[in-house]
This record gives sequence, structure tokens and C-alpha cells, in this order.
Amino acid sequence: MSVDLNSDLGEGLGSWSMGDDDALLSIVTSANVACGFHAGDPSIMRHVTTRAVANGVAIGAHVAYRDLTGFGRRFIDVDAPTLRDEVTYQIGALDAITRQAGGTIAYVKPHGGLYNAIVTHKEQAGAVVAAVRAFDRDLVLMGLPGSEVLRLAEVAGLEIAHEAFADRAYTPNGHLVSRKEKDSVLHDPEQIARRCIAMAAGEPIEDINGDPITLRPDSICVHGDTPGAVEIARQVRVALETAGVPLAPFTRAS
Amino acid sequence: MSVDLNSDLGEGLGSWSMGDDDALLSIVTSANVACGFHAGDPSIMRHVTTRAVANGVAIGAHVAYRDLTGFGRRFIDVDAPTLRDEVTYQIGALDAITRQAGGTIAYVKPHGGLYNAIVTHKEQAGAVVAAVRAFDRDLVLMGLPGSEVLRLAEVAGLEIAHEAFADRAYTPNGHLVSRKEKDSVLHDPEQIARRCIAMAAGEPIEDINGDPITLRPDSICVHGDTPGAVEIARQVRVALETAGVPLAPFTRAS
Amino acid sequence: MSVDLNSDLGEGLGSWSMGDDDALLSIVTSANVACGFHAGDPSIMRHVTTRAVANGVAIGAHVAYRDLTGFGRRFIDVDAPTLRDEVTYQIGALDAITRQAGGTIAYVKPHGGLYNAIVTHKEQAGAVVAAVRAFDRDLVLMGLPGSEVLRLAEVAGLEIAHEAFADRAYTPNGHLVSRKEKDSVLHDPEQIARRCIAMAAGEPIEDINGDPITLRPDSICVHGDTPGAVEIARQVRVALETAGVPLAPFTRAS
Amino acid sequence: MSVDLNSDLGEGLGSWSMGDDDALLSIVTSANVACGFHAGDPSIMRHVTTRAVANGVAIGAHVAYRDLTGFGRRFIDVDAPTLRDEVTYQIGALDAITRQAGGTIAYVKPHGGLYNAIVTHKEQAGAVVAAVRAFDRDLVLMGLPGSEVLRLAEVAGLEIAHEAFADRAYTPNGHLVSRKEKDSVLHDPEQIARRCIAMAAGEPIEDINGDPITLRPDSICVHGDTPGAVEIARQVRVALETAGVPLAPFTRAS
Repeated sequence: MSVDLNSDLGEGLGSWSMGDDDALLSIVTSANVACGFHAGDPSIMRHVTTRAVANGVAIGAHVAYRDLTGFGRRFIDVDAPTLRDEVTYQIGALDAITRQAGGTIAYVKPHGGLYNAIVTHKEQAGAVVAAVRAFDRDLVLMGLPGSEVLRLAEVAGLEIAHEAFADRAYTPNGHLVSRKEKDSVLHDPEQIARRCIAMAAGEPIEDINGDPITLRPDSICVHGDTPGAVEIARQVRVALETAGVPLAPFTRAS
Repeated sequence: MSVDLNSDLGEGLGSWSMGDDDALLSIVTSANVACGFHAGDPSIMRHVTTRAVANGVAIGAHVAYRDLTGFGRRFIDVDAPTLRDEVTYQIGALDAITRQAGGTIAYVKPHGGLYNAIVTHKEQAGAVVAAVRAFDRDLVLMGLPGSEVLRLAEVAGLEIAHEAFADRAYTPNGHLVSRKEKDSVLHDPEQIARRCIAMAAGEPIEDINGDPITLRPDSICVHGDTPGAVEIARQVRVALETAGVPLAPFTRAS
Repeated sequence: MSVDLNSDLGEGLGSWSMGDDDALLSIVTSANVACGFHAGDPSIMRHVTTRAVANGVAIGAHVAYRDLTGFGRRFIDVDAPTLRDEVTYQIGALDAITRQAGGTIAYVKPHGGLYNAIVTHKEQAGAVVAAVRAFDRDLVLMGLPGSEVLRLAEVAGLEIAHEAFADRAYTPNGHLVSRKEKDSVLHDPEQIARRCIAMAAGEPIEDINGDPITLRPDSICVHGDTPGAVEIARQVRVALETAGVPLAPFTRAS
Repeated sequence: MSVDLNSDLGEGLGSWSMGDDDALLSIVTSANVACGFHAGDPSIMRHVTTRAVANGVAIGAHVAYRDLTGFGRRFIDVDAPTLRDEVTYQIGALDAITRQAGGTIAYVKPHGGLYNAIVTHKEQAGAVVAAVRAFDRDLVLMGLPGSEVLRLAEVAGLEIAHEAFADRAYTPNGHLVSRKEKDSVLHDPEQIARRCIAMAAGEPIEDINGDPITLRPDSICVHGDTPGAVEIARQVRVALETAGVPLAPFTRAS
């Protein structure tokens, strides 16, 4: 029994920063590194991957739609061959920088609008799977349990990873409660930590109705884009360690 | 005795095209492939590298300043660490796509404004050399004979390649005559072909004054951004073959 | 009885060109000028608007999603306030350049993916209408007959213009036959010209089944992105003039 | 006797923020609003101009090189016609948004690398002057005293404004001490405020050697890109008010 905490990192751009990468890199065990399409630039990528290697944090390519001003959060109706090549491009760019930092990419996690689209969008899901598999069939593909992209990844022979969210409410059938609804996001660090411990132990958590639901994530996402978020992530880590739950990457560390 | 012809390829973007890549790929022996910073996109990169591999054309990364609207032709006073990381990013992206096309990158040729800047700009020249060397010290760095970037590349232990231009006039000391001056660019296909044959044989050509000057290029650049340019390139190739000068990449073919 | 021909112009970017703007500007009576979001740059905008003013061609702002690599053809799920401000930005930029060219913007035509989306997408349609109205309530909004955007424009008190396509097949209820279907695009210049003459006269044309359908467009779109397209446009203009149908902008000329 | 405080505002982009625009807009009397080329987006521009109008803060167009990843700080060797058109585009875009906010642009201040380049670069300085004058010859052009751009602006009949920096050390001949040198930037709010009061009164301040130097700025720039900078700006304002120096825009308020 161990648990992996992942977070979106390297999401600044040039003079703009986003979150506290260095703080998060002392908390999480897997770093989803932006590749320049929704955020991130080559020097930020170098900084984050270098730190990740030093801290034993696994590195994932956080691939996205080409959409800096929208931060990759908006659906773009890009055709599958273009998307496949754009994903390849992003992984390749991060791979070069990661290898110079002394590490390797262990997994791929689609970002934002793309992450959401390929829960159901077959063509785009297939494009992501094709790009990952063609790059390196030992890469793990992380996504939402039950999503089309994970189904196709398994068909293609890729290893997959189920992701859960530490601070999000779940419906009875295991979907995320929409952010537009009340109580969709949890804010209490102790409650969030308890849920993480339960998930790590394979025990049920409470869904939005208070009924038990059992998630068995390979990795739990924590956020770091605000000072408050970093503090919650830190408390989650401390709570896990106090509870005797070892933290470790779900993949090989970089 | 053999000669290499290189050309800038893959310089479209999305719906915009530039030159006739497919025609050039049946003429040249080395393809400088744009990496998305001055031109090119992932799908164009895939198309060009796939064709290059099929035709036995060597693949080089045509790295550039980040400047799509300026086509990478303008000097940008980017600091050395940023430039180094941007070059790494571009090579990595092209590398991933090239490997999926069944090939490998054999060399790097800086583009446009960067090419010109690092004839003398020590910091930017050093940044390019550092990026190439860290990526793969077997990559060849192509540039202008006598340039700072080639000097630093040799110091760093990289193999270098001297480039000449089939259609450009030279000063007595081997520099290019500025495009702003009269007779700086040659347009007669026969004259251009004769010069290529002479250069391949190690024989002198005429400088701008009509005096002999001996260039010993490892590769000769031909242009392909206009229909006329493609036709000149084709005639140069035919003339070389007729003269019995074998055409072959100066590096390993992809 | 007169007819307006419009075309998408100024769709190059930096070193990339698209179509033959100068040729089209001697054919059409209304120029949809790209504003830099899907294509176009400030210098191209200046060139096209200057020529349009000289030729008595009306100027429209061809506003688009922010998507250079996709040429604005892909749906982007941008939220309404962002889209409204982006449309304002584009109109304002073109307005400044047009006024320096001695003209004024007479209308707005959404481009590509946005044009198609706001046939039905209420929020995005409303954002476009709000931006146009707030900029200048005398601007005419051009779109597809029956579209949500034209309905909302009328509600908002804007003048609207119905657009037809010279070279596209229509369904019995006046919709465009999808480009994916056979015979969706016409290629015969004579047939295209005959349809334009009929539309100008308020007479029926044949729909995809050969049955009569009467369109009463305020403007007919001709394409210019290929040499063949320019030639068709030229023949359409000659045929209209030969038939005694005067060509004139549907708005004030710039 | 009154004094104008200006600050660079609206320098976020999409999800990225930069500084505290709202706080600064309660302190300064002139807002240099980013126009989307080095920073800023249409929605940020709308927010800042709306607040500026509400607060009686004058609005200036903070025009820049096209360089988001470099934040417009790097010299780009753009040719004069392109730069002129890019400046027109930026002013036009901001003008449309400002007018919808109920205000008008009162002045133009070039940003960063462009600001520095046109202290001496004649062609680029001329391009900026041409763009401003053609847009509206009542716009004021703000720049460094003694710069080429202000000289050309006066020749062209434009009103100019001399800028001083509250927190920068000056050489004996009135130039800024390079940021690379020791003591080039002041950090003591009281000292900075005293200098502002002296400048407003037309009295000398101390140069880098401690000798008196008299600057007569039309506007004093305060920074707001860090929490500390905002606090200094606030203290400067309070000190000026306490000293009885009225704060007012150097131009018409928006």
C-alpha cells in the first residue's frame, strides 16, 4: 500500500508565474509538466524537470491543446491527425529537456479541455493514444477512470493509470460533481487528507450524498495554483505520512 | 568527390504553404526541417521527415528564433539560457517526429536571423552549441565558414559543416555580398550549376570582382521558396549528375 | 436590381500569402478583411484596405476565433465575454488601419468556425452581436440566412445582410449541402454565373435535387484562395456585367 | 504645481496575472495599458480601462514589440513599416475597448525593449511617431527625455511628455544608471517619495554621486509588479498628498 500525489507544474510562461513549483516539488511524487501548448516554456520545463529529478519526483508530459490565452481549458475541435502530431511534438520537446536534466518521462496526462474531451471524444482520444504509443509504448497514460481514452489505451496495449481528485466531490456512479454545483470542491485540509488515506487503503469515501463509494486511484491529483492550495497539499502529505501511508510515484521515478 | 545539396523545407504553417517541399525532396540530399518556431507545424514536420526518409535525404533541425510573423528573419536579443532551452525544445520536438518517421536527425542548421547573428554574437552562438552538444554530441552543426558558432562548436568537440550558397556572390575574403548590393544574387541556372561543380571539385569560383576564390563547402544551399527556385535547383542537380559529380548527404542519411 | 460580390481577403500572415488579394480587389465589391486572429497582419490589413478604398470596394471586418494554426476553421468553446472582447479588439484594430487608408468599416462578417458556430450557438452569437453593436450600431452584420446570429442582431436593432454562396449546392430548405457530400461544390464558371444572375434578379435557382429555390441574398460570396477560384470569380463578374446586372456594395463603399 | 504618477497596467494574459491592477488604479493618475503584444488581452484591457474611467485615471496605449514570451523586453530588429502598422493595430484595438468603457486614449508610451530601442534607433522611433500621429495628432507621446523618439515627435508636431522613474538612480547627465550596476534601484519608500516631491517642485534630486540634478518630468513612473512595489507606490502617493502636492494626469483624464 502506497499512494502517489500528482500536480500540474511548470504552468508559467515567460515572465508570468503560476503556482509555486518549487514548493509542490517537495510535496508530490509525480509532476505533470506543461509542454508549451497551454502553458510552460523551455526554460520553465528545464527548471521543473531538473528539480523533479533531484527530488525523486516522476515526470509526466502534460500535453494540451494549442491554446495559451485559454490555458488549454477550452474544447478545440482539432482533427485527429493534427492532434496526434501536436501531442508527439510536445512529448518530444519535453523528452529532450528531461533527458538533459538526467531523467526520463514516465507517463502522459492530457490537460484541461483535452482531458475532459477525451472522456468521450473517440477521435481525439484515439489521437492521444496513437501519439503516446508511437513515442514509447512503455509510457503510462493517466486519465479519468471509465474514460474513452483509457479504454482505447488498454486496447492499444498501453499501461494506464486511474486518477482521482483529492478535493472534488463524486457522484454515486463515480463521476466528478460539476464545478458549477454547490459543494463540488472540498476546502477542509483534514477532510481531504482523510479521503486520501481512505483511497490509499482501498477503503470507501463518501460521495456527494454521503453514501460510500470506493475509488482505487493509481494517483491522486492535488492543486497548487494558489497559496492555499499548496498549504492543503502539504497537509495532505503530512497526514498521509503520519498515518503511515508511504508516498511513491505510481511509475518509475525520473 | 561528392556534393551535398541542402534546402530549407517544411516552412509552411497550418493552411499556409511555402515552396514545394515534395519537389525539393527529389532534388536535395539534406533537408533543413523547420521546427515550429519560425515556420512549420507538427503535421508538416511529419510529412517532410517521412518523405525525406523515403528518399534517403538526410534530416537537419532548422532551429530558429521564436518569431512566426517575422519568419525568424529578424534579430531578437534573446538571452543565452532562454535560447539554449528553445533550441533544445525544437530539436527534441523534431527528433520525436523524425524517429516516428523511421529516421534520425543528422545535423542542426540555425535559421535566418539566428544564423546571421551567431556569425559574430558569442553568447547566442554559445547557446546554440551548448544545446546541440547536450542533445547529442554526434550531431553536426552547419553554419557559415569562419563564423563564431562554428569556432565554438569545434572547441566543444562537435563536428561542423561549412555551407556555401549556390546563388550568392562572394567578396574576395569569402563573405557573402549583401543582398542590398547589385549582383549579390545569381539567377542563371547554368552559371549556378558550374559554380556547384567547381566547388564540389575543390576548384575556384569567381568572386564579385571576377577573381578566383576557392570555397570547400561540405554542403551547398539551394532555395525552393519560388517555382523559379525549384527549377534552378533541379537544373543544378542535373548538371552535377551530368558532370559525374555524385550527390550524397554530408552526414548519415536519415 | 444590383448585386454585391464579397470575398475573404488579406488572409496571408507575414511571409505567407493566401490567394491573390490584388486580383480579387478588381473583381469584388465587398472585402472581408482578416483582422489578425485567424490570418492577416497589420501590414497586410493596410495593403488590402488601401487598395479597397482606391477601388471603391466596401470593407468588412472578418472577425474570427484566435487560431492562426487552425486558420480559424475549428470550433473553440470560448466563453461569451472573452469572445465579445476579442471581436471588439479585432474590429478596433481594423478600424484604425482602415481610417488611415481613408475608408471606414461598413460591416462585420464572422469567419470560418465562428461563422458556423453562431448559426446555432446562442451565447457566442450574442457575444458577436454585442461587440458589433457596441462598436458602432450602424455596422451591418453579415451571416447565414436563418442563423441565430442574424436573429439576435435584428432583435438588437442592427441591420443584417443575408449571404449566399456562388459555388455551393443548397438543400430544399435553403441550407448548404455539407462539403463532405457529393456535388456540394460547383466548379463550372458558367453555371455559377447563371446562378448569381438569377439570385440578383430574385429568381429561383436549382437546389441539390434540381427543384427551384429562391434565395434573396444581399451579398454573394466568391472564393479567391486558388488561381482557379480567382478565374471563376472573374468570369462571374464578367457574366453579371454582360447580363446588365450592376455590381455594387450592399453597404456604403469605403 | 502638480504631479502625475503613471504605471504599467493590464499586463496579465489569460489565466496569468501580473501585479495588482485594481490597487494601482487607486494610486496612479495615468495608466499605461498593455495592448496584447507583450501582455494583456481584450478582457483585461476592458477591465483596466473601465476601472480607469471610473477612477479618473488617464489612459495611455502601452505599445510594444510582438513578443509575449519575452514580455516585450527584448530588442527585435523589426523593419519600420511593419512596426508602424503594428503600433497602429495596438492603438486601434485599445481605442475600441476604451471607448466602450466610456473613455479615450490620451497618450502613448512605448514599452520595454521598444522604449529603450527608440532612445537612439531612428527608423523604429520614426515608425512609432508616424503611427501615433496618423492615428490622432492630439495624442501625447511619452518617453525618455533626450530620446530620438521625442525629438522626432516634436518635429512631427506631436505633444511630448518627459518621464522620470521614482525608484531609479540617475547619472550626472540625466541617464538611468544601468540595472546591472550597484544602487541602480532605490528601495526606501521615504527616499523615493522625497524625490517625487522634489521633482514635482522643480527642485534637484541627488544623482548617483550625490550631486544635484534637476529633472522636470511630466510624469513619474511607479512600478506595481510586486506586492512591495504597490506598497511603495501607495506611500509615494500619501507622501505627495501630505506634502500638499496635487496629483493629476498630465493629459486629459479618460
